[in-house]
Amino acid sequence: MKKIALFPGSFDPFTCGHEDIVLRGIKLFDSIIIAIGYNSSKDGRYFKIEYTIEKIKETFADYSQIQVISYAKLTAELASDHGANYILRGLRNTTDFEYENSISQVNNYLNKKLESIFLITSPEFASFNSSIIREVHRYGGDISHFVPYKL
Amino acid sequence: MKKIALFPGSFDPFTCGHEDIVLRGIKLFDSIIIAIGYNSSKDGRYFKIEYTIEKIKETFADYSQIQVISYAKLTAELASDHGANYILRGLRNTTDFEYENSISQVNNYLNKKLESIFLITSPEFASFNSSIIREVHRYGGDISHFVPYKL
Amino acid sequence: MKKIALFPGSFDPFTCGHEDIVLRGIKLFDSIIIAIGYNSSKDGRYFKIEYTIEKIKETFADYSQIQVISYAKLTAELASDHGANYILRGLRNTTDFEYENSISQVNNYLNKKLESIFLITSPEFASFNSSIIREVHRYGGDISHFVPYKL
Amino acid sequence: MKKIALFPGSFDPFTCGHEDIVLRGIKLFDSIIIAIGYNSSKDGRYFKIEYTIEKIKETFADYSQIQVISYAKLTAELASDHGANYILRGLRNTTDFEYENSISQVNNYLNKKLESIFLITSPEFASFNSSIIREVHRYGGDISHFVPYKL
Amino acid sequence: MKKIALFPGSFDPFTCGHEDIVLRGIKLFDSIIIAIGYNSSKDGRYFKIEYTIEKIKETFADYSQIQVISYAKLTAELASDHGANYILRGLRNTTDFEYENSISQVNNYLNKKLESIFLITSPEFASFNSSIIREVHRYGGDISHFVPYKL
Amino acid sequence: MKKIALFPGSFDPFTCGHEDIVLRGIKLFDSIIIAIGYNSSKDGRYFKIEYTIEKIKETFADYSQIQVISYAKLTAELASDHGANYILRGLRNTTDFEYENSISQVNNYLNKKLESIFLITSPEFASFNSSIIREVHRYGGDISHFVPYKL
Repeated sequence: MKKIALFPGSFDPFTCGHEDIVLRGIKLFDSIIIAIGYNSSKDGRYFKIEYTIEKIKETFADYSQIQVISYAKLTAELASDHGANYILRGLRNTTDFEYENSISQVNNYLNKKLESIFLITSPEFASFNSSIIREVHRYGGDISHFVPYKL
Repeated sequence: MKKIALFPGSFDPFTCGHEDIVLRGIKLFDSIIIAIGYNSSKDGRYFKIEYTIEKIKETFADYSQIQVISYAKLTAELASDHGANYILRGLRNTTDFEYENSISQVNNYLNKKLESIFLITSPEFASFNSSIIREVHRYGGDISHFVPYKL
Repeated sequence: MKKIALFPGSFDPFTCGHEDIVLRGIKLFDSIIIAIGYNSSKDGRYFKIEYTIEKIKETFADYSQIQVISYAKLTAELASDHGANYILRGLRNTTDFEYENSISQVNNYLNKKLESIFLITSPEFASFNSSIIREVHRYGGDISHFVPYKL
Repeated sequence: MKKIALFPGSFDPFTCGHEDIVLRGIKLFDSIIIAIGYNSSKDGRYFKIEYTIEKIKETFADYSQIQVISYAKLTAELASDHGANYILRGLRNTTDFEYENSISQVNNYLNKKLESIFLITSPEFASFNSSIIREVHRYGGDISHFVPYKL
Repeated sequence: MKKIALFPGSFDPFTCGHEDIVLRGIKLFDSIIIAIGYNSSKDGRYFKIEYTIEKIKETFADYSQIQVISYAKLTAELASDHGANYILRGLRNTTDFEYENSISQVNNYLNKKLESIFLITSPEFASFNSSIIREVHRYGGDISHFVPYKL
Repeated sequence: MKKIALFPGSFDPFTCGHEDIVLRGIKLFDSIIIAIGYNSSKDGRYFKIEYTIEKIKETFADYSQIQVISYAKLTAELASDHGANYILRGLRNTTDFEYENSISQVNNYLNKKLESIFLITSPEFASFNSSIIREVHRYGGDISHFVPYKL
């Protein structure tokens, strides 16, 4: 059976920390589906979803086994739809750990076959936080250091 | 003097984790008042407050010493109103601990007689998080596993 | 049924932080048994156990409902022996929380009736740590600020 | 070279915990600029910015080396503008630590000369949290204990 | 290339929590080598190493792709010896996270090909801690609930 | 008044993470005294104290304002002896934070003039941990990457 992993997130923006997890994870899985959660009922994204999809696709253009999609449903259900038995997530710090602990148990309740696999974000990227990066961008700061693609 | 505890929260929804704390706490106190904080100025609740009160009452129908109320005032003041000298709270993880540490000190400044008592949430419920459960429900997921009552 | 709580620890030494927990806990319980774990197979204590018992007894001389004992068995078993259904513990920080989380679950496995009740140590005492205090004493520092009794 | 530190925050309100950090920090630096981040695009502040500036100025009226300003730009850029090579921040708990860890690395990427210096908030103020204090004030509670100035 | 994972630890004893990680991990890897670190220069183990190896082998008798060995060298070097490019580890809580974060970075410095993969221990086993279990056993407590094999 | 900081630790060994803190701290202080705590009553060090002093001196040979000493007394007292009003410490993670929080409060009780100043260890060094590095060295691993001097 193929090992397919979902890498879900809001990726607003997709950072070098996210790229780090995907590039390290791809050795472990046959394919990775980068899935951008899109919640129409919530406040809009800072970076447009189409733009973000495009940029992530560019980033992994050389990897045929990496797909990029958006979704507006339960992650556990999305995994079923795609035959993905794994969720791949990065852990940057203890705040992440506590949150991921909750979300992974809930995902497992909703889909017993779903296993969450964690990598610890490489130290040089562990401080990269989408919400801080948005703040930098909002004030005209240079965020090219924090994202893996050309803005 | 009777030992009356307040169990305050937004309970949106009231989870099996909350039930766990109440059922374990009731051995320690003469009565527990489950108090749903209701902030009219903030964004609306996901589950209606009347519905939530009804469901929690159903859950503890067999316990005459457990009351359910809503409130829109300071927790420390509510405690005074009801002659409650204890606040009962569950701790799921370190994020909870840091938050409860702050809030309990502030409550104690506001009402010197008020003592906060903590139980650690049982492991099977420690991942139950109202905000994640709302997200599951929003997307049509089955949340019956996470709440102690029939939806 | 009487509410009896065990307050177990090594108390080497018994600090003002420990006293804080006992004095706040005694309002909740009918009696508290301060139980000094004594492990003959391990490295010796810094302060003699007889001395520590004496000093704790002095500290609570006015409280007939507070007892001080030493023990060398499972805490869960000691609780049974004394008809204690509660373990009282203080939480100073997240490191304490993670440790107490583990130990309370294990105690509950060993003795299903045993409930662990936590108070958060008052901020002025939260930095008091028996091992740091021993270190201060070892180098001749004044530790009278940290312990509730005269040395 | 003069040692100028920025003490940035939203200070809504400025608490005794903030005052504690400034008073302890001022021994270390030649001057401190208390800088209230003001984000016009976000939800309004609870306490007006002019009022807050006034109150902080009053609090440090005796300290000619302490300035109070508001700003709506990158903190790293503001530091450059004022010749400040240091950012001063208080740490209350592990949640603060994880957040400050991220933000300080990002600030350092944006301005290589900028060094973030941390003090641990004194225990008596470590539970003071602007958002909890706003909540207390919203319900008519007395917050005079939590802020260093007369409301 | 075969995906071989090392599952290193002192396993004194091997708990149900360890078993949980191995059984969940085996779906991800072609084989898992359970490697008991044995440090002759340190204080002796509580449970003999031969006994522990025997018991772990029994536990996984039905899994030909799971091996059990002991070792007294660098984990990073052991991985090379066995052609293992992965280290599998369980995370129970934030204390584990901080420790594993350090150790995984160091392993990666020592052996660039080595990737550490984490699973979060299932909640029912997250409190199982070898040192607490040894303590229970030392005092004659029943630890059969905590280990996957017959003692 | 001159700003003198103590940088105390056991430094067994002194790592690149320690060097990072000293090099960043030296901009803030007039001088830094690196003080190796030496506890004759405890188990011996892994690296000899004379050797470690020599190596740290070499590392900072170009900095006349950096001194290296060993001590066997209270840190708070050592600070007085040297007219140091500051303790400089690095924070790598939340485990460090909780420990440093305790120790800094205790130091402040013992010497009211003593202020503890924290820098967050640069991400590339945050995983460097003396005890893990000793373990690597014990098994013949190459630790040159982790220490700032030639072994």
